[in-house]
Amino acid sequence: MKPFLNEHFLLESKTAQQLYHEFAKDLPIIDYHCHLPPDQIANDHRFANLTKIWLDGDHYKWRAMRTLRVDEQYITGTADDLAKFEQWAACVPYTLRNPLFHWTHLELKRYFDIDELLSITTARDVYHQATKMVQTPEYSVRGLLKKMNVEVVCTTDDPTDDLRYHDQIKKEPCDTIVLPAFRPDKTLNIDKGQFFIQYLERLESASQKSITNLADLFGALTTRMQYFADRGCKLSDHGLEHIYSVDFTNEKADLILQKKLKGDHLTLEEVEIYKSAVLYFLGVKYHELGWTQQYHLGALRNVNRRMEYQLGADTGFDSIGDWRQATSLGSFLNKLDETDQLAKTVLYNLNPNDNAVLATMIGNFSDGKTKGKIQFGSGWWYLDQKNGMEAQINTLSNMGLLSCFIGMLTDSRSFLSFPRHEYFRRILCNLFGNDVERGELPHDIEWIGKIVTDICYSNAKEYFDF
Amino acid sequence: MKPFLNEHFLLESKTAQQLYHEFAKDLPIIDYHCHLPPDQIANDHRFANLTKIWLDGDHYKWRAMRTLRVDEQYITGTADDLAKFEQWAACVPYTLRNPLFHWTHLELKRYFDIDELLSITTARDVYHQATKMVQTPEYSVRGLLKKMNVEVVCTTDDPTDDLRYHDQIKKEPCDTIVLPAFRPDKTLNIDKGQFFIQYLERLESASQKSITNLADLFGALTTRMQYFADRGCKLSDHGLEHIYSVDFTNEKADLILQKKLKGDHLTLEEVEIYKSAVLYFLGVKYHELGWTQQYHLGALRNVNRRMEYQLGADTGFDSIGDWRQATSLGSFLNKLDETDQLAKTVLYNLNPNDNAVLATMIGNFSDGKTKGKIQFGSGWWYLDQKNGMEAQINTLSNMGLLSCFIGMLTDSRSFLSFPRHEYFRRILCNLFGNDVERGELPHDIEWIGKIVTDICYSNAKEYFDF
Amino acid sequence: MKPFLNEHFLLESKTAQQLYHEFAKDLPIIDYHCHLPPDQIANDHRFANLTKIWLDGDHYKWRAMRTLRVDEQYITGTADDLAKFEQWAACVPYTLRNPLFHWTHLELKRYFDIDELLSITTARDVYHQATKMVQTPEYSVRGLLKKMNVEVVCTTDDPTDDLRYHDQIKKEPCDTIVLPAFRPDKTLNIDKGQFFIQYLERLESASQKSITNLADLFGALTTRMQYFADRGCKLSDHGLEHIYSVDFTNEKADLILQKKLKGDHLTLEEVEIYKSAVLYFLGVKYHELGWTQQYHLGALRNVNRRMEYQLGADTGFDSIGDWRQATSLGSFLNKLDETDQLAKTVLYNLNPNDNAVLATMIGNFSDGKTKGKIQFGSGWWYLDQKNGMEAQINTLSNMGLLSCFIGMLTDSRSFLSFPRHEYFRRILCNLFGNDVERGELPHDIEWIGKIVTDICYSNAKEYFDF
Repeated sequence: MKPFLNEHFLLESKTAQQLYHEFAKDLPIIDYHCHLPPDQIANDHRFANLTKIWLDGDHYKWRAMRTLRVDEQYITGTADDLAKFEQWAACVPYTLRNPLFHWTHLELKRYFDIDELLSITTARDVYHQATKMVQTPEYSVRGLLKKMNVEVVCTTDDPTDDLRYHDQIKKEPCDTIVLPAFRPDKTLNIDKGQFFIQYLERLESASQKSITNLADLFGALTTRMQYFADRGCKLSDHGLEHIYSVDFTNEKADLILQKKLKGDHLTLEEVEIYKSAVLYFLGVKYHELGWTQQYHLGALRNVNRRMEYQLGADTGFDSIGDWRQATSLGSFLNKLDETDQLAKTVLYNLNPNDNAVLATMIGNFSDGKTKGKIQFGSGWWYLDQKNGMEAQINTLSNMGLLSCFIGMLTDSRSFLSFPRHEYFRRILCNLFGNDVERGELPHDIEWIGKIVTDICYSNAKEYFDF
Repeated sequence: MKPFLNEHFLLESKTAQQLYHEFAKDLPIIDYHCHLPPDQIANDHRFANLTKIWLDGDHYKWRAMRTLRVDEQYITGTADDLAKFEQWAACVPYTLRNPLFHWTHLELKRYFDIDELLSITTARDVYHQATKMVQTPEYSVRGLLKKMNVEVVCTTDDPTDDLRYHDQIKKEPCDTIVLPAFRPDKTLNIDKGQFFIQYLERLESASQKSITNLADLFGALTTRMQYFADRGCKLSDHGLEHIYSVDFTNEKADLILQKKLKGDHLTLEEVEIYKSAVLYFLGVKYHELGWTQQYHLGALRNVNRRMEYQLGADTGFDSIGDWRQATSLGSFLNKLDETDQLAKTVLYNLNPNDNAVLATMIGNFSDGKTKGKIQFGSGWWYLDQKNGMEAQINTLSNMGLLSCFIGMLTDSRSFLSFPRHEYFRRILCNLFGNDVERGELPHDIEWIGKIVTDICYSNAKEYFDF
Repeated sequence: MKPFLNEHFLLESKTAQQLYHEFAKDLPIIDYHCHLPPDQIANDHRFANLTKIWLDGDHYKWRAMRTLRVDEQYITGTADDLAKFEQWAACVPYTLRNPLFHWTHLELKRYFDIDELLSITTARDVYHQATKMVQTPEYSVRGLLKKMNVEVVCTTDDPTDDLRYHDQIKKEPCDTIVLPAFRPDKTLNIDKGQFFIQYLERLESASQKSITNLADLFGALTTRMQYFADRGCKLSDHGLEHIYSVDFTNEKADLILQKKLKGDHLTLEEVEIYKSAVLYFLGVKYHELGWTQQYHLGALRNVNRRMEYQLGADTGFDSIGDWRQATSLGSFLNKLDETDQLAKTVLYNLNPNDNAVLATMIGNFSDGKTKGKIQFGSGWWYLDQKNGMEAQINTLSNMGLLSCFIGMLTDSRSFLSFPRHEYFRRILCNLFGNDVERGELPHDIEWIGKIVTDICYSNAKEYFDF
């Protein structure tokens, strides 16, 4: 019997262990998509205690606590930080077989050298021991990035965001390259009533342009994209139920936007036309700028309206949708490709059923210039766990080329999430190792070690040109 | 090599064996959803022979026999019981790798202590040996429930059903608690032509109310729900292609019902409005009554019309559908939740593709009061087999909390199906055991044994308050 | 550690090895669906070199090369054959974990006795060694069929195809039975503009009938089906996004066809009516002729239009679609069954999500005459790899009867693809062997060996009556 979470965690064979320890383990981390707050990096923030750095904003943990009938005051409410931590600690033993159980103990181990299992019994000890460390200078935000060997971080920013924190980061010595990424989701949300109008006002103010029609909107977005590009932005990102790619003309989309600005009601068809037009426009611009575009497809968000009103978005009330993805995605990428304006693209799916669609879609648009030009992104959100990652890796292997894969990202809001790269690397090495042991791959450690290195580090570095 | 179906069947590691034999094996069975006939329990029915107790009504076996080109007279026809049994026995060796093969031999072993493999060679011996036992008093229906350590059984009953057998059961000593469950599928079937009208007549007669509009219908259903509640009913159940949750008003639904009563044709849209209204009304009532609502989603029923005309429904001509589930399910649960009228809910899917949608949907509606308030139900029908159960358990583990799961049910029409609980428990213990052996869970047998006990017994007992 | 690709490749247990080597290995191959060119069989073609026999037309390899940014001139372009081969060889090490990696080395081994791994280093040696062999008489097309122990080959032919090569094959001694199969996809493509009109002209010329309405079309098709039947055709095949089965009358379909012939634009609804009518007509005819009908469902073809214009169809720019399949498929099969006109049917899916739908659909239409009358076809295209085959076999096992399965086919354009049968057989034996070793099947090698033989050979021979 193997001890829990030892050095060979998730590595089931000698070959897997060799691949991980000799090739993958010490590679720097390129976290090309996450939600870390740039202000905290700029100000080299220090957290007050373990609850602040580990539980605040972590809707994965919140959701588990709610399922275990913890009162909301201990989750997002006004209970004190230790009490909140104790409630979480009491839940941890009940999270067994959920990735939270692994992440929790991996993070305690890697950041705080704590081997004990977290439970209500150990809660106070763990809290105080970790909090003491959290308050030291080495556990500042930049300290943590350094400790985890993070070479690049790409944050996720709205077109209207002021990137002054990114400016500030660049002015001060920082071992980690920190770049903004452009996420204009709200620009598409013409079906979100007054929120959309208010958003356009913020965009007007950020771009210093008034927006009265589609050309104005495109102009404002162009201004902001240039502003982002000037600050090193290399990626954009979209969170969508599915790609919008109905027939449209800019003329039609313009009329629809103007209807909306006048306060008129839009039909579903009009909404789709507007979204298709804006999405396509952005795709063309991304290509022009040499960026990589990312699409996160398939989340059914804010299903519980009561809690949305109470706590807002991204608080643990989202689940997996089941929209059809293939046709519109193919049509969208093709439309961009037909005029040779298709940017490098990473496609992420939330519904594991879409693995095969994405893993085969990416092979349709190679261009002879970029290795793995269109990427099937690593297991995202609910799929960011052992089975989910294995399914993504295996589907990509069987239906595409795993060797071209740009690998893992955290997608996290927390500075304590970097062990997810370790988690991914172990899983990857384990799959390769098992294949070798079973005689399904040649016993050529140098070659497979090179491929592992490519997937964990070099491919992303080359693909994004970091 | 492990012998077939020995004591460690499905238990691949020492830890798995320990978990099963020390914790799961001897737990009582709570069968909170099945189709056992209450009259047979009330009258403590004894079956005439092995065919009557084992083959009659078993459309799983029928389907396999038809695939192997057995003539219908030996399946549902007039052949004598021994001849029917021989035909089935001849098929059994060809069912290898199908759950029927395991169930068959597990049932022969557990009920009749028969170790021999069933085939045409052993058919007569098995038939006579088991038939002799079937005819003894210990093999009466109540004898079997006792033999299998069944603590609770919930039958499945139509709103128009007379629950006199449940009354009769309660009056006589019975070690098993037997409760009715409310399944008003036919109330929704406004698209089933004359069958619907006839059904309403039966409902009028059962409720002693005339039904001329929606309010009448709701009144009649309320009467019947109270009648069920008075007899200990704690669960309702629906079998649906997908949840109906379009925009509706009761006014619209009322007009549609009245159109139908007048014999007018309904549009698809009208059908959906009616169904949405009735489904929502029922959900509200279930909450009011403190019941748990169950939804079985995704069966494509009676695909073969010729055989439906000949043999009726539930005769082995149903398969798996591929409707979209997420949006309507989310909208339905949310509508009930917005006014705090969402009952405890169990969601079952027939299409394995919907695992991820259901496993994540359930986490959107926790209420801080019930542990695992919304449940992702155990592998149902075609998914009630090793791979299907493992996928359900793993998806629930990865995307929700397995520890809150209320576990297995037979969904069976037969008193010989209880070993499916054993089957489930072995699979569950095996997954946990393998995780421990691989170092993916701590080697804490007491804790994991407790969780196993919860899933196999305690969670359901607490959840349903049996 | 097991050596790569040794005699026990993919066979993880002694029982698996025994099943494969004693039962499966030496069985003849029945390749009941492939795309081999009949002219090359008729003329006993010899290939000029390894590139010609192995790379030409192989869009699986092309796609991988493009992902690895090989210039198109080395793929479909004008580069010389050795240069093309070197480019491919350089890609091979990067295809690890893709079926190409296994197929490549299995094919080198079985056809050319080459054990070396293909890479840029070994490219020239391999090329020259294999080319030398390719040019010898034993490596003629018929030599290869004999070498691989191929008993039956069914080609794939358009209704307008002249079957003179099939006539020629029959006149000369050939150890392999070579039969045509009827694939009238273009007859349905009424939405393909001028291509459809041109196709009807070819059909007119092949059938010697003028086509001015639906009855003419049906007449022409009937003539061609008889022509095929006279040449031993026993199978038809359709490649469809999904089954078309909307309500139709031949009168409506006739008007739609005449509209098209007049050059009028058709609505989507009209297209569906026409396709439904023709598909149904063909199904009835297949039944009348005693043929087996095949449906390949779910490919999203020619996604990249730029490359379609440049290179045509089937050049590596297709991926997996996600249409709903269950309802229309059920309705289509039922419509044929209602009048007892449902032919034997093989259903293939490209999207692995459809496994469960197909594996359960097939059980709805047994007829008591044919063992496994409706078949869930073996893993196709992107699913023709270890995980895909295992998923197909396991789903069929769990939801139907594996014992009735007619097994593997290559679906290939190449005479070097027959080791895919070996690949399938190894995977099948491995699954059975592991079940036995784990105690999930009885240790009855004779019985399981018989079932393996049935699946790999006898079932197909009996099912198609070869």
